[in-house]
Amino acid sequence: MIDVIDHDRVRELRLARPPVNALNPALIAALRAGLREAVASGKGAVVLSGLPGKFSGGLDLPELLTLSETQLRQMWVDFFGLMRDIAALPIPTVAALTGHSPAGGTVLALFTDYRIMAEGAYKLGLNEVQVGLPVPEVLVRALGYVVGARQAARLAVGGLLLDPGEALKVGLVDATSPVDEVVPRALAWAADLLTRPPQAMAGTRRLARQPLVDAFDSLGERSLDQIMAAWMAPEAQATLGAIAARLGKSKR
Amino acid sequence: MIDVIDHDRVRELRLARPPVNALNPALIAALRAGLREAVASGKGAVVLSGLPGKFSGGLDLPELLTLSETQLRQMWVDFFGLMRDIAALPIPTVAALTGHSPAGGTVLALFTDYRIMAEGAYKLGLNEVQVGLPVPEVLVRALGYVVGARQAARLAVGGLLLDPGEALKVGLVDATSPVDEVVPRALAWAADLLTRPPQAMAGTRRLARQPLVDAFDSLGERSLDQIMAAWMAPEAQATLGAIAARLGKSKR
Amino acid sequence: MIDVIDHDRVRELRLARPPVNALNPALIAALRAGLREAVASGKGAVVLSGLPGKFSGGLDLPELLTLSETQLRQMWVDFFGLMRDIAALPIPTVAALTGHSPAGGTVLALFTDYRIMAEGAYKLGLNEVQVGLPVPEVLVRALGYVVGARQAARLAVGGLLLDPGEALKVGLVDATSPVDEVVPRALAWAADLLTRPPQAMAGTRRLARQPLVDAFDSLGERSLDQIMAAWMAPEAQATLGAIAARLGKSKR
Repeated sequence: MIDVIDHDRVRELRLARPPVNALNPALIAALRAGLREAVASGKGAVVLSGLPGKFSGGLDLPELLTLSETQLRQMWVDFFGLMRDIAALPIPTVAALTGHSPAGGTVLALFTDYRIMAEGAYKLGLNEVQVGLPVPEVLVRALGYVVGARQAARLAVGGLLLDPGEALKVGLVDATSPVDEVVPRALAWAADLLTRPPQAMAGTRRLARQPLVDAFDSLGERSLDQIMAAWMAPEAQATLGAIAARLGKSKR
Repeated sequence: MIDVIDHDRVRELRLARPPVNALNPALIAALRAGLREAVASGKGAVVLSGLPGKFSGGLDLPELLTLSETQLRQMWVDFFGLMRDIAALPIPTVAALTGHSPAGGTVLALFTDYRIMAEGAYKLGLNEVQVGLPVPEVLVRALGYVVGARQAARLAVGGLLLDPGEALKVGLVDATSPVDEVVPRALAWAADLLTRPPQAMAGTRRLARQPLVDAFDSLGERSLDQIMAAWMAPEAQATLGAIAARLGKSKR
Repeated sequence: MIDVIDHDRVRELRLARPPVNALNPALIAALRAGLREAVASGKGAVVLSGLPGKFSGGLDLPELLTLSETQLRQMWVDFFGLMRDIAALPIPTVAALTGHSPAGGTVLALFTDYRIMAEGAYKLGLNEVQVGLPVPEVLVRALGYVVGARQAARLAVGGLLLDPGEALKVGLVDATSPVDEVVPRALAWAADLLTRPPQAMAGTRRLARQPLVDAFDSLGERSLDQIMAAWMAPEAQATLGAIAARLGKSKR
């Protein structure tokens, strides 16, 4: 599900779950393991990448709709756990957004240190509201950290998907580039950061990113309850069911 | 004092207190009632608008100078109450800034979900300091929510009035348009937001706007004491008296 | 070490410690005294300036490396004290950045009310990480106040030095100008602010800048411990020693 490619001290974790790198419990677990192993093997940084045109389509809604409530809750525990892992990772991470990155795709990117997005007809953003799900409180907070409180409200409440130029303008990504330069530039950004004195860099990084971690530690449980209640509500079930049916994959 | 115009699910509350829609206790009460009734009648959103060239000139200083200290304190309680009502309203609001919107005009806009400003020789901003009044703490906080802490300090401390282009650049408004398109565009923005799954939208909106409400709940009383002390001080009385005299209306 | 030049109600404190206005215990003490005296003599505002091409090269590393641990800790107590003095000063301050302003030069500017930077081949930014020192927590917080949390992380973790145009774009400075207009424009900005009703301006200013002061009151001691531990660590000692040797001045 993940291709592991080492570029000297930078490890690339390339999502490889066709057709759209949808996030299901297995991929979420693989990502958490991949991050853990990168740190354990002494890597200096991690680049999360996808395939040309597809970073991640977000959560695998059809599969999630087959889960029991208990399994679904566990999925959210693990997905929040993955976000917190990225936020608190002792080494820098970069999101190499090689294509479409709506919802869960953008979520992963929010917690990395740097986001670079492929130019072209690709979209990203927290469009959860469009599919009938409120944006969890930890994500509202993290989005505010990245783009400021007011833009976070505008983007999250409207469930807006942005094109790369808009995302750059509002600060949701740090850079855009032709799709085939996204990974090389992400690797170069990470490699450059690793030229800094490591303890000073790591110490400053921990302080500057603390609000992202604090959001989980103070809001995680509440966010989990909120998202579970919203998911089970008729509004979300209707919207999600329609999406799953359209995708032609619902197994319920 | 307010014209109520329904556009399908969006209710427009058009300020209609000539000549400049100055905010006095009666207009403040009418606005609070108008918001309450919009929610009670099941409307989906509210647009606050003015007349071409005049959104609101802010507080009605000549009238306020005729109030006793007790009446004045009650006015501030109600004005803060109006701000909090907008901040906490369960349905979205839009500020259709159809012209000049200094001080109190900008204050109302700060707490809405979206601000669109008429292009042209119109001004907006928190110019309280220019008339001898400190900006209350809840407003400093709300301005920081909208434009960030540093710009909030620059704008509030200097009491700066901005033209529409500057306001757009700094994020004090979200869009500008020719004056006769301000209300239509505000209505369209609200109508578009109402196409979202309503519970997901409302839930996300509540989370994203919580800091605006929290400011009142944690600072309201302190802000009230601060503004009352400042208003009664010789500096403010001199400045306000001169303004009222210039407006040719002081009844003191 | 400091030239004191009065321009009506605005006092200019011009750093004059050749060759690069490096901050040592004596200059830090002189700055604190200069600020205290400006307030005591009833001045309305202070402009901190340097010489053409050189605002300040930051801390005097060669001299600091000759200090005992006790002396060094006292230096940091005093340097944090200077920052807090600027943050909490009852009158506005302006940073007239007349040239290079890395590290400590930028630090001083962060706590002023307005920053104007000389155009040209000059650099500013918190490059502490580049010399092996983590950015203290109070500075991460202050940088976030000025440029937002996400840009603060990017700039501080990378230890980035910016040219004037980049600094303006990201909001690290408020304006840029030809070097010989930096001081006149800083003086004009301060003089303009002093045309406001003084109590309203001062009261608003205190509220809007409170987060800068709060950072010291809540984090000061922790920041001090962090920076001392980092300074004494082998990584920083090696980097700092190399710099001092390169500057050809180490007295150790």
